[in-house]
Amino acid sequence: MSNEVNTDLLKERSTATFDAERLTEFIYKGPEKVKRKRQIQNIVLQDKFLQSFKPTEFYDRDGQYNNAVRRQIYIMDRLEELGFRSETDRLNFREAAAPVELSPFGLHSGMFVPTLERQGTPEQSRKWVPLGKSFKMIGTYAQTELGHGTFIRGLETTATFDPETQEFILDSPTLSSIKYWPGNVAKTVNHCLVMAQLYTQGKCHGTHLFLVQVRSMEDHTIMPGLEIGDIGPKLGFDGVDNGFMKFNKYRIPRMNMLMRYAKVLENGDYIKPKNAKLTYGAMVMVRVWIVMDAFKALSRATVIAVRYSAVRRQSELRPGGEEAQVIDYQTQQYKLFPLLATSYAFLLAAEGMSQIYAKISSDIERGNLEDMPQLHALACGLKAFCTWVGCEGIEVCRMSCGGHGYSHASGIPKIYANIVGACTYEGENTVMMLQTARYLSKSYFRGQRGESLPELIQYLTIDLNVKSTLGEDCSFESLVAAYSHRAARMVATACKLQNANKQKGMPSHDAWNKSTVPFIAATKAHCHLLYAVYGIVENMGEFMQDGYFNQDQISILNRKVLALLEDIRPNAVALVDAFDYPDHLLQSCLGRYDGQVYEALYENSKSSPLNNTDIHSSYYNYIRPMMQKRSKSKDISAKL
Amino acid sequence: MSNEVNTDLLKERSTATFDAERLTEFIYKGPEKVKRKRQIQNIVLQDKFLQSFKPTEFYDRDGQYNNAVRRQIYIMDRLEELGFRSETDRLNFREAAAPVELSPFGLHSGMFVPTLERQGTPEQSRKWVPLGKSFKMIGTYAQTELGHGTFIRGLETTATFDPETQEFILDSPTLSSIKYWPGNVAKTVNHCLVMAQLYTQGKCHGTHLFLVQVRSMEDHTIMPGLEIGDIGPKLGFDGVDNGFMKFNKYRIPRMNMLMRYAKVLENGDYIKPKNAKLTYGAMVMVRVWIVMDAFKALSRATVIAVRYSAVRRQSELRPGGEEAQVIDYQTQQYKLFPLLATSYAFLLAAEGMSQIYAKISSDIERGNLEDMPQLHALACGLKAFCTWVGCEGIEVCRMSCGGHGYSHASGIPKIYANIVGACTYEGENTVMMLQTARYLSKSYFRGQRGESLPELIQYLTIDLNVKSTLGEDCSFESLVAAYSHRAARMVATACKLQNANKQKGMPSHDAWNKSTVPFIAATKAHCHLLYAVYGIVENMGEFMQDGYFNQDQISILNRKVLALLEDIRPNAVALVDAFDYPDHLLQSCLGRYDGQVYEALYENSKSSPLNNTDIHSSYYNYIRPMMQKRSKSKDISAKL
Repeated sequence: MSNEVNTDLLKERSTATFDAERLTEFIYKGPEKVKRKRQIQNIVLQDKFLQSFKPTEFYDRDGQYNNAVRRQIYIMDRLEELGFRSETDRLNFREAAAPVELSPFGLHSGMFVPTLERQGTPEQSRKWVPLGKSFKMIGTYAQTELGHGTFIRGLETTATFDPETQEFILDSPTLSSIKYWPGNVAKTVNHCLVMAQLYTQGKCHGTHLFLVQVRSMEDHTIMPGLEIGDIGPKLGFDGVDNGFMKFNKYRIPRMNMLMRYAKVLENGDYIKPKNAKLTYGAMVMVRVWIVMDAFKALSRATVIAVRYSAVRRQSELRPGGEEAQVIDYQTQQYKLFPLLATSYAFLLAAEGMSQIYAKISSDIERGNLEDMPQLHALACGLKAFCTWVGCEGIEVCRMSCGGHGYSHASGIPKIYANIVGACTYEGENTVMMLQTARYLSKSYFRGQRGESLPELIQYLTIDLNVKSTLGEDCSFESLVAAYSHRAARMVATACKLQNANKQKGMPSHDAWNKSTVPFIAATKAHCHLLYAVYGIVENMGEFMQDGYFNQDQISILNRKVLALLEDIRPNAVALVDAFDYPDHLLQSCLGRYDGQVYEALYENSKSSPLNNTDIHSSYYNYIRPMMQKRSKSKDISAKL
Repeated sequence: MSNEVNTDLLKERSTATFDAERLTEFIYKGPEKVKRKRQIQNIVLQDKFLQSFKPTEFYDRDGQYNNAVRRQIYIMDRLEELGFRSETDRLNFREAAAPVELSPFGLHSGMFVPTLERQGTPEQSRKWVPLGKSFKMIGTYAQTELGHGTFIRGLETTATFDPETQEFILDSPTLSSIKYWPGNVAKTVNHCLVMAQLYTQGKCHGTHLFLVQVRSMEDHTIMPGLEIGDIGPKLGFDGVDNGFMKFNKYRIPRMNMLMRYAKVLENGDYIKPKNAKLTYGAMVMVRVWIVMDAFKALSRATVIAVRYSAVRRQSELRPGGEEAQVIDYQTQQYKLFPLLATSYAFLLAAEGMSQIYAKISSDIERGNLEDMPQLHALACGLKAFCTWVGCEGIEVCRMSCGGHGYSHASGIPKIYANIVGACTYEGENTVMMLQTARYLSKSYFRGQRGESLPELIQYLTIDLNVKSTLGEDCSFESLVAAYSHRAARMVATACKLQNANKQKGMPSHDAWNKSTVPFIAATKAHCHLLYAVYGIVENMGEFMQDGYFNQDQISILNRKVLALLEDIRPNAVALVDAFDYPDHLLQSCLGRYDGQVYEALYENSKSSPLNNTDIHSSYYNYIRPMMQKRSKSKDISAKL
């Protein structure tokens, strides 16, 4: 590899009108933190073992899983040696050390141990948490079943209390009750927190969590009474052993039910939890993380696409001139610059969400549940919105790299494959949107009754007859007003349809279902407040159906969006540089900081496993015999 | 597997209001052809060898390529034995025998041999075509380079004539000139048609085709002077050996240039072709095929998603009621039913395109080139439109299957991964759209000058002041008028911006570039005439920016789209059944005709390669040592 930076990229960087380093400091909250982040990333870069892995797509699933186990154990050991205390430091190390790989112990540390801590009794925690922390117990969390996902009440796995033996009998009574999808169940863990319907004294008390040993802690053999296996290959998460698990009247001690809130006594009496919603925080937290994941995924794709667009030259912009940087095509700018802006918007949204989450969850811990619906609605809506928009955007970035985007060497297919799962896991997106929609509907009707609304949704009560004051300057206030107006109008329209359906005599669940399409649109509009001019132009119909904008204002916006592309153009590369993702994190031949994309592609190709031999075995086994058979009868000279 | 059909699917089929079999007959052009198609698919189903392959995602790339070679040679042999004469029969056999696999000999038969036939002189054809047909020569077509794709004039590979030896010297003078992407170059072929810049007598005459031997026909060794290899793993096309190829002053005989149109004489004189556009038809034909591919991909995804949505039950639609079929959720209907309609629209578009292609290309062969621009514009626009819309739709179908859609067992990830390549190959979509845009722009200005326009674009001259007459019935005429109005208005707007840019003093290429975003939007509108109510509602802003619809009409359309969902609901399953895709073609656990989805998923999982052992080797190599090391210091009892 040459050490030179591509001249187009050099020029982009020297002509930017702001200092990318200052923006990096803003993103990571100060120069000290940037420095620290880079130090940690450098430790990884200097680590020969960590740098010895080939690109993940060069391995098959077996090899990818094997690598994940091997590397993640090494990472855990190194983290202990390094002794980082800050979670940010640890995260930076893990991300740099394994940028596209999920840890087989991630659910152990992120879900299993914390849930034992939070939902076990003090005695249970004292007993199990040390076993978890010392990896005697390796665990995960098993909820989803073949026939049941987002709707937890529908789970079918049963845990029936047997007072005779003081045991619960775990059972999978139907095909659709088989646990299916839980991460790391297939090969890695020896314990599972299993969500099951609790039965005692002949009565069902809904879903509860049970600690279930699934493999021997001595020799890893599967416990008798269980059937466990890998569910098979997926779109992404190649190296993850998502598993299935079938219980055949499998017995566990009574004390393996997590009993901090609900309990089953020795005689089989069931004691209800005081507040059913207290276990709810973890789900919200995971959704906040997902918004951050969407930011990371989209921003990485954007870095790759923007840098490559500055390096790639294709076709003549001026007849007879040299081939142009593709970033100079207006159509390319219109694809990428709004996604660049979206990346920044997602970052701010994720950080805002985290702050709101921290505040509200400390309120909740003090017993103040008032803001929980608001937090829930916000987390559901943004989880769905950011994953949908982010995933679509990543594919746009990939295709904006032309044919090379289709190669794994671009790095983008893996980014997409991994994040797109988030559209359907941890709450399927449409279901999430509808939870937010319910909240908007309730809030709308409360507003109509004159009740006061939380700050984030006070806009639902604005006067919809007021028209836009947007002028040539497209002021920030006029844009916010437009988004508020549009969302408020669409929520009102959906609510009115819901009401009209009721008045036609539909039962209320039917009236709701038959207005959910407009509600989804309204909820997207509610989440869309992250945007500015582009969001209006792309969704013009929703903004103008009631005459909110006049003809002149529409023309202003259409002109403005094209003008903004030219404003951003000189700073596009600096704006992606500011994310400060080192090459070994991006894992992309196209997104390299030095822009030496063709050299990188060529070098990468040469090490593809299919190049281990010059002549593939299938030539000897199939092609040569076929050629011989076919040419035999025809006696054709081989000489050209 | 049980042989019963899922009761929900049974009910869907019995309550449909039309006979799916009649629609199948319409799709395949008569009951005889349906019968014939099924017979052929049945031959495949009875073939033990063809049914012996496991799902493709259970193999690594090496295995997938090996399977492809093995199976496709078998298919060629069987086709010879069966002696099908009709291309439809052969296609039906091939599709049923290898539904998600590309043949390593597909480019040989589809591009290499036909190009020798069409672009070789009679003597060249006589010499080479029999060698190709007898598979002594196995060939492909090499055009794309590391640095050059859609813009063919930019290719850098050179073919320099040396009159001394009567040879061409093929060379890759730069890194970016290395051939990169051509299918089957890496491992399969021994010959290549190479697109290269022809140099003779010190002058460049642009790109021409050369027949180049790349491997020995005796032992398959790579010819000296060439560097050849696999480019590495991609998003899809896993089993295809897309290759790179570098020429190091590699010599071929003068007569290996395809000389039907252009020629290089012994003395090095260059003879120009009479008409440069005559070689153009193949590219148009490939784009027509791609529209058909987009139909097949989207319709398969739709079949899977609609059937699964009828089988899958999730959440309560009515509180306390049984879990509802997800197809009964309005939001699910809004995702799937427009895509079901789009599938039918794509089928009709692909067939219409084929007919126009046949007519115009026979005109062209008779020397009448008048309609060529129209055909070109149509093929470019529909290729881009149908692949973009189809690919987005496939992902919507996949995600509408919830978490299970993410598993390869759903069959949808492979459909997406393979067809999405078509957005960037054979002409990158935005470039394709801009070709159509150029045609629309030229036509618009011709229309403004009073010249007559071809039928398909006569709408560009309609009076834009006429408002919509759409009423409660949403008549077909009023919908067509709306789409025409919208497209005509958007083309006019883009053209006016182009003109205004010129009048501001921009050079014309700049004026064009700076109006391409509105032109892309206008071109999409032009292609969008396939649609009806849904297309208007989803793009309302574009239809109403000039007041074409009044408030009442907008309300009518918004109501209509929801009402249509209910109209389609009872026939959704029958509408997908009508495509008549047998299970062994769909390769989907979720899209099975019998709806036994959970049984299928569970059985499929059990045979996943990661289940070959109960305990993965990484346990012994890494997990157990880690556990021992960590528990050693802590001496914690393992007893729970």
